Amino acid sequence: MSGVVIATPYTSHPELIRAAADAGKHVLCEKPLGASLEDLLIARESSQNTRFATGFMRRWDPAYRAARGRLDDGDFGKPLLLKCSSGDQAYPEKYLREGGEAPGAMFRDLAVHDIDLARWLLRDEVKTVYARSDALVHPQIKRLGDVDTAAAVLSMRNGGLAVVTLSRSLEYGYKVCTELVGNKGSVEIGGVEMMDAKRLVGGNACVDIFDDFRLRFERAFHRQMKGFVDLVRADDDEAERMIRDNCSFASFDDGARATLVAEALCESADTGMPVDVPDFNDAVVSR
Amino acid sequence: MSGVVIATPYTSHPELIRAAADAGKHVLCEKPLGASLEDLLIARESSQNTRFATGFMRRWDPAYRAARGRLDDGDFGKPLLLKCSSGDQAYPEKYLREGGEAPGAMFRDLAVHDIDLARWLLRDEVKTVYARSDALVHPQIKRLGDVDTAAAVLSMRNGGLAVVTLSRSLEYGYKVCTELVGNKGSVEIGGVEMMDAKRLVGGNACVDIFDDFRLRFERAFHRQMKGFVDLVRADDDEAERMIRDNCSFASFDDGARATLVAEALCESADTGMPVDVPDFNDAVVSR
Amino acid sequence: MSGVVIATPYTSHPELIRAAADAGKHVLCEKPLGASLEDLLIARESSQNTRFATGFMRRWDPAYRAARGRLDDGDFGKPLLLKCSSGDQAYPEKYLREGGEAPGAMFRDLAVHDIDLARWLLRDEVKTVYARSDALVHPQIKRLGDVDTAAAVLSMRNGGLAVVTLSRSLEYGYKVCTELVGNKGSVEIGGVEMMDAKRLVGGNACVDIFDDFRLRFERAFHRQMKGFVDLVRADDDEAERMIRDNCSFASFDDGARATLVAEALCESADTGMPVDVPDFNDAVVSR
Amino acid sequence: MSGVVIATPYTSHPELIRAAADAGKHVLCEKPLGASLEDLLIARESSQNTRFATGFMRRWDPAYRAARGRLDDGDFGKPLLLKCSSGDQAYPEKYLREGGEAPGAMFRDLAVHDIDLARWLLRDEVKTVYARSDALVHPQIKRLGDVDTAAAVLSMRNGGLAVVTLSRSLEYGYKVCTELVGNKGSVEIGGVEMMDAKRLVGGNACVDIFDDFRLRFERAFHRQMKGFVDLVRADDDEAERMIRDNCSFASFDDGARATLVAEALCESADTGMPVDVPDFNDAVVSR
Repeated sequence: MSGVVIATPYTSHPELIRAAADAGKHVLCEKPLGASLEDLLIARESSQNTRFATGFMRRWDPAYRAARGRLDDGDFGKPLLLKCSSGDQAYPEKYLREGGEAPGAMFRDLAVHDIDLARWLLRDEVKTVYARSDALVHPQIKRLGDVDTAAAVLSMRNGGLAVVTLSRSLEYGYKVCTELVGNKGSVEIGGVEMMDAKRLVGGNACVDIFDDFRLRFERAFHRQMKGFVDLVRADDDEAERMIRDNCSFASFDDGARATLVAEALCESADTGMPVDVPDFNDAVVSR
Repeated sequence: MSGVVIATPYTSHPELIRAAADAGKHVLCEKPLGASLEDLLIARESSQNTRFATGFMRRWDPAYRAARGRLDDGDFGKPLLLKCSSGDQAYPEKYLREGGEAPGAMFRDLAVHDIDLARWLLRDEVKTVYARSDALVHPQIKRLGDVDTAAAVLSMRNGGLAVVTLSRSLEYGYKVCTELVGNKGSVEIGGVEMMDAKRLVGGNACVDIFDDFRLRFERAFHRQMKGFVDLVRADDDEAERMIRDNCSFASFDDGARATLVAEALCESADTGMPVDVPDFNDAVVSR
Repeated sequence: MSGVVIATPYTSHPELIRAAADAGKHVLCEKPLGASLEDLLIARESSQNTRFATGFMRRWDPAYRAARGRLDDGDFGKPLLLKCSSGDQAYPEKYLREGGEAPGAMFRDLAVHDIDLARWLLRDEVKTVYARSDALVHPQIKRLGDVDTAAAVLSMRNGGLAVVTLSRSLEYGYKVCTELVGNKGSVEIGGVEMMDAKRLVGGNACVDIFDDFRLRFERAFHRQMKGFVDLVRADDDEAERMIRDNCSFASFDDGARATLVAEALCESADTGMPVDVPDFNDAVVSR
Repeated sequence: MSGVVIATPYTSHPELIRAAADAGKHVLCEKPLGASLEDLLIARESSQNTRFATGFMRRWDPAYRAARGRLDDGDFGKPLLLKCSSGDQAYPEKYLREGGEAPGAMFRDLAVHDIDLARWLLRDEVKTVYARSDALVHPQIKRLGDVDTAAAVLSMRNGGLAVVTLSRSLEYGYKVCTELVGNKGSVEIGGVEMMDAKRLVGGNACVDIFDDFRLRFERAFHRQMKGFVDLVRADDDEAERMIRDNCSFASFDDGARATLVAEALCESADTGMPVDVPDFNDAVVSR
């Protein structure tokens, strides 16, 4: 066995990354990589000696890949705005009884995908964030630090802007959509309609929508896993080339930076004030 | 008053056309222009001295107009196939009690629009037709010569083909759609969705559909009427130019030819055999 | 003449409203109603004795109307999030030479529509705003206080959230879209596709998009004008009932409150900090 | 090895079916099963002692499966009309030089899918067919008995009607679409758009379309193969139940009947006259 896939609750990620990397295994670790900057820096050191991929499966989805390809080809001109929505199904009964998933899960677990997309599609780092959140559908979870509705603005260093809306209370289905706006063109990745089959019934034209991230991102997960297996099997030169040339691979630093932005969003939602994202390079160097 | 709009039951059309034209009025007459070739030839003579437009409102609809414009620009290459569907709402209760609209109404009243589209978009005359029809939803109307379901193939002189499906028994809405297939491109004119507003509810993405031809073709009827008013008000030179340059105007002969094809469809549906469409030019000359 | 439509540059609105209302005319005034709170309060007094409508034409668009109707019927459950985008065509050459439209025009002229939608569809008042903006495509206009790209979050009093993105530099068309997310359902009002006619050409399925707000909102402007004419012609009881029962009518206070939010957005974009919107009722009472 | 997949040119199918079945292998054979009735009857006898599936992969596509499921649930009421289009990419250069694929390939190879859909979705047998065909884009292939454009009507025993259009000359992509019209509802299976990602560029909203049947029906082929493997691995009772309960399995008789209809279409296209389809049961019994 030469590769390890880490898909445990995220608080265990830094330790498992260290254990796997120190044992000489290549690693695919689900987002987010951790929570504290200190944890990330320690895990990072171990990850240096291995082939490491952070699991942002959206990067492997054909529609997201095609959008990034066209952006790189200049079809959309200069990327200006990104509009991201992540809408999950109704809150699990279990969590409602027991008091929510975890403080900050909305940003750390869900928004972290949109943060990665902002970096990946606006081709820039996040400088400042502003977030608002509330428990509008299930007020009982608020008491325990959880929310079901949130919105945020990410300001990039070079002026690009991303808005993110987040829901964990939709009774009608699962919806992740992303729109990239450039001055020459834009692209809307819907991903909401399960198949190209329109029913006309009772005054409506209807299409089935996805009810779950597993089905929506079935191909993305499959391609990500295949990509990691290929990476593990490659020789060193090939592996280096794959990581460099295939923008679907997210590095350790990609995962760490997204995590720092998620933490800043948590802080902004708590304080109601904009928060500057700490510079990861500075942190790495000063360590 | 210098213009007359004729929108009565079609059996009265030839006589009203003659009366209006002989009184020196310009005429916009709803399709179909009549039923028998003899009637058409008589009405045609009167119409020669006036500005005459047959009311095929689909030609005035923005989507159909744009399709024809792009076809003329060569965007779709050579037109090969036309797929037409005209689907009406549920059969009126009144007709069910009294025994259907009229023998042949499905072809004379409804298919006549699709016949005109075949001539207008395939840029050719219909040579041979084949039709099948039945009363599948309301068997009681069959006894009186009416049908609620039909399908047909129109073979054009130069090889192009049109298929037409017709329904008069849909409980869920009104649907007219048309697809033109060329070797370089095709265009689907849907016209089924009432507005660009998609609702996500209960596992479905839904859009309201039209329930009636009046709302679907509101703009087309409005533009057709405005076109006729402009035609009536124009001086002779302008009127001639308008009729020649604006392909939304259907001439008397356009209306007459479509009527002859509709009659051939009736005969084919009755006999189960293909029927050749008589040559209108020959009939005109021989008269 | 008993009614006046005011569609001048907005700085003249307060004075013209006063003049028209004091002359006993009913008024339809284009948004925004003004800029300063003081101006608004003076104009408001005059407007009390007349039938007054603020021109937010989106409220009259069939798709927006249908969405509001379904929201009121409970189809979408509790409204949680609103996602608004207003994307205008490329910046006019004239403005580029002369230095932009006006400081704040992005929020006062364009975002004011989205602000009104947030109040109209989330059924709540805006409490706090946060905005970021920049001149990313035309840096030269920044020097004169103008921007071409912006994003904002509006926090409503009861916890609902709206995100707004704004562009004035799109080379490819005009796009206004709005998505309302409730816990039981959501609705996306696209309004980007000009007609239901899909072309298949060269590996793509394509639909024409609107290039201008006039064509996109043709029916909305027409219905708004017809609504105002009906309002002017009605007797007092009817007029009162129309304003009360037809939620497409925006009152003076609707216009004034949207204006105050736009001003707060300007301030937030300038300072980089969240800004609380002043309470309009308090201002009215204290005057 | 206990199962054999036959995907050779169709003229070899009857012999290979016999060889495999006589050797005790279970068989998945690509459509069409053969050409002549005599061949089919001989192959049928061999197939009786094995588990046999005809490869109509559309039956395994999620959208087609969902349509059939909803039809069985009564969502669409009585099925009345089926509209089928099979549009292939541009004619291969090779065939143009050498003179077409084969006489009748348009009906035997391509339309045979739509014939199966007519039986599967209208739940009835084809009684009479009428077809027209021509070589409109590549006249040189006509001389060798091949065509690039065709249209047909299939009349079912109980009155339902199917129209089929066929193209083998589209420069812009691959398009298979199917619409089932019932009196209570209808369903359009588009299958033309490769992903839910809409680009707004240069006045158009565009989506990539499929260029090939392999990508369009990737999941269908995968599920069909998995279904056959499961069938081969099952014990006799399970296998019998799978074939009976899973309507995606097409039996030998399904394949044979579709083949007879394709032959009738060839004859009709040749003669220009409607052709009655021979009764397969009678042929089996009389043998």
